[in-house]
Amino acid sequence: MNRTSGIAAIVWVGDALRLIDQRKLPHEEVWVTLTTAAQVAGAIRDMLVRGAPAIGIAAAYGIVLAAQDQEKCNPDGVKTWRAALRPAFDLLAASRPTAVNLFWALKRMQALVDQYTDRHDDPKIVTAALLAEAIRIHDEDIAANHAMGRHGAALLPQHCTIYTHCNTGALATGGFGTALGVVRTAHAQGLLKQVYAGETRPWMQGARLTAWELQTENIPVILSTEGAAGQLFRRGGVDWVIVGADRITANGDVANKIGTYTLAVLAKHHGVKFMVVAPTSTIDMNMADGHQIPIEERPPEEVTHIQGVAIAPAGTKAMNPAFDVTPADLIDAIVTERGLVLKPDAAGMRTHMKFLSEQP
Amino acid sequence: MNRTSGIAAIVWVGDALRLIDQRKLPHEEVWVTLTTAAQVAGAIRDMLVRGAPAIGIAAAYGIVLAAQDQEKCNPDGVKTWRAALRPAFDLLAASRPTAVNLFWALKRMQALVDQYTDRHDDPKIVTAALLAEAIRIHDEDIAANHAMGRHGAALLPQHCTIYTHCNTGALATGGFGTALGVVRTAHAQGLLKQVYAGETRPWMQGARLTAWELQTENIPVILSTEGAAGQLFRRGGVDWVIVGADRITANGDVANKIGTYTLAVLAKHHGVKFMVVAPTSTIDMNMADGHQIPIEERPPEEVTHIQGVAIAPAGTKAMNPAFDVTPADLIDAIVTERGLVLKPDAAGMRTHMKFLSEQP
Repeated sequence: MNRTSGIAAIVWVGDALRLIDQRKLPHEEVWVTLTTAAQVAGAIRDMLVRGAPAIGIAAAYGIVLAAQDQEKCNPDGVKTWRAALRPAFDLLAASRPTAVNLFWALKRMQALVDQYTDRHDDPKIVTAALLAEAIRIHDEDIAANHAMGRHGAALLPQHCTIYTHCNTGALATGGFGTALGVVRTAHAQGLLKQVYAGETRPWMQGARLTAWELQTENIPVILSTEGAAGQLFRRGGVDWVIVGADRITANGDVANKIGTYTLAVLAKHHGVKFMVVAPTSTIDMNMADGHQIPIEERPPEEVTHIQGVAIAPAGTKAMNPAFDVTPADLIDAIVTERGLVLKPDAAGMRTHMKFLSEQP
Repeated sequence: MNRTSGIAAIVWVGDALRLIDQRKLPHEEVWVTLTTAAQVAGAIRDMLVRGAPAIGIAAAYGIVLAAQDQEKCNPDGVKTWRAALRPAFDLLAASRPTAVNLFWALKRMQALVDQYTDRHDDPKIVTAALLAEAIRIHDEDIAANHAMGRHGAALLPQHCTIYTHCNTGALATGGFGTALGVVRTAHAQGLLKQVYAGETRPWMQGARLTAWELQTENIPVILSTEGAAGQLFRRGGVDWVIVGADRITANGDVANKIGTYTLAVLAKHHGVKFMVVAPTSTIDMNMADGHQIPIEERPPEEVTHIQGVAIAPAGTKAMNPAFDVTPADLIDAIVTERGLVLKPDAAGMRTHMKFLSEQP
C-alpha cells in the first residue's frame, strides 16, 4: 500500500503519532509527536489536524496511545481496560462534534477493545490488535481515496475546470484526498484544464493547504476569494464544483466546511455541476436529514483575527459556524469508494449503502 | 449643513485636503495631508480613500489643488489653465476605472474650468469657483445620503435584520453613508434589530470599517465571513441585503464591490429582499447594461497576503476582480436621493432619471 502519496500528514512511528501542524503550513513544516490520547484530542480540537477522514485516523491512533499507556500502568491484565480506556474514547469523541468519521473510527476501535479484552489476557496482544486496526483504517482510507478519484473523474469532461473549497487533499485524509483525489486523478488522466481554490475563511485552508498541495504537484491552481465565486461562475467556464463532506445523512444532505452551501446555491443558479466526494464512513444512515446535524460554533476570534492579528475593532461580535448543510437537491453526485449516487435522495442513498452492506 | 455626522474621512483645510488613511483603520487613525492632484490620484489608487462617492469628492478637491498650483506657477492669467489642468484631470480619471462618480465629479469640475477660464482673468476667482464647486459636491453628497436613508428606511419592516457588504458609510461618502445611511436611519427610527456585516475579502472593509462605524454609534453588528452568508440566509431572519454601488447602468444593472453578486444570488434563492443605495451621480444612463462596465483587476498580492503577511505559498496565482455586476432582475429596489426604483429595469430607470432631469 502506498502510504505516502507524495504528501503525508499523519505518520505512526513505532509507539507515537507524528502530525504535521497544519496551522503553520505553508510557511513552516512543523511536525509534532503525540504520545497520549489527550494530546490527540487537543490536536483535533486546535486544528493541528483537520479534514474528516484524517480526524478519524488520528483518533484511532489516539486509542492505540491510550492502550500503550494502559500496557505500562496496568500491565497485569486487560480486564479493567474497557473501563480504563473510556475517558480516552470520550475525550476524542468530544474533540469535533460534526465529523462523523471520528465516531465511526472510534466505534471500530471500541469493537476491537470489546472483542480482545473478552478473549485475551496479554496486554501486548490487545495493543497490537488495536494498532493493526488503526493502520487498517488508515490504509483503507488511502485505498478509498484512490477509488473515489477514479469514480469521480469518470464524470468529468475533457479540458475540465473545477472549483474546490477548503482542503480535501492528502492533508485532510490518509494521504491522497477526497475531492482533491478526484482533482489529482483528473490531472493524471489528462482531463484537467484548471482548478480554482476558494480560500475558505476563516481558516484559509484553500489558500494555505490546497494551493500548497496542488503547487507541489504542478497542478494549475488559481486562488479565489469566496465572494468572487459568483462572478467567476457567471462568466462561465467552470464545469464542476467538487467538495468533501464531514457528514452525509440518510437523504443525501451534506454537512461540510462553512461556505459549501453558498457554493451549492451559486452552482445551481449558474448550471454548474456539484459533486460531493467522501468515503462511506462519512455517511450517517442513522440521521434522517441535515436538520439534525450539530453544527460546531467556533470562537469569534477566528474571524476577527488572522494569524493573531486583529482585522476588526476590539469587541466586535462575530458568528463562526464551522460547517453548513447543503440539501441533497442541490447536489448532482455523491461519490464514495464504492461508486456514485447521482441526484442523491433517501432511496438512492439506501440502495448505495445496502449494496455496500452486502459486500464481503 | 452638517459636514461631519460623527465620522468624517475627507476634510478640506484651507489649502489642502486631509484624508484618514482607511487602510490603517480600525487600529490607527492616521491622517494624511495632500497638496497636489497627483497625491490625490495616488490616494485613490492605493485605497487610502475608497467608496464611490468619497472618491468623487476627493477627485473634485484634487482639481482644486491643481488650480492652486497653477495660481502659484502661472499667476498672470488663466487662458492656459484649461490645457495646464488636463494632466490632473487625466491622472484622476485613471485612478479607478469602475467608479462612475469619479467621472461625474470630474465632469462637473471641467465644466467650471471651461466656464470660468472663458469669462475671467483673475486666477483667484477661478480657484475660488472651483473650490466652491468641490464643496458643493461634498455638501450635496451628505444631503443625498440623508435623503437616501429616509427613502430606503421606508421600505423596512419593524425589528428589521439587515445584511450589508463592504463599507458604504461615513467613510465611503461625504459623511453619512449610502447603504449604511439606510442602516443609520433605520436605527434612529427604532426599526433596527440587527446588522450583519460581511467581512468583504480581500480588503476586509466590512471587518475593519463597517464594524468600526457601527460600533462607534452603538448599532448592533455581527461580523460574518462571506462563505457563511448562505447558511445565515437559510436559517431565516434576515429581511434585507442592503449594499452600495460603484456604477448603475441604464437598465438597472449594478457594479459594486466583489462579493455583491454572490449575495444577490443567495438573497434571491432564499426570498431575502435586495436593496441598492446610491446617489444619482452613480447612475450611468449612457451605458445600456452591465456587460459594458470595465471591471478593475487588482494585484494578486491583495488576495495572497493580509496586512503584509502571506497566507498562500510563494508564487500562488490569484484572481482579484475588485467589482462584480449584479443584474437588475436580482434587485428589489434601487434607492437614490430622489426616491425609489422598485424592480428596476430600463423603463423604470428612464422614468426615475427623467423625473430627475425635470427638477429645478
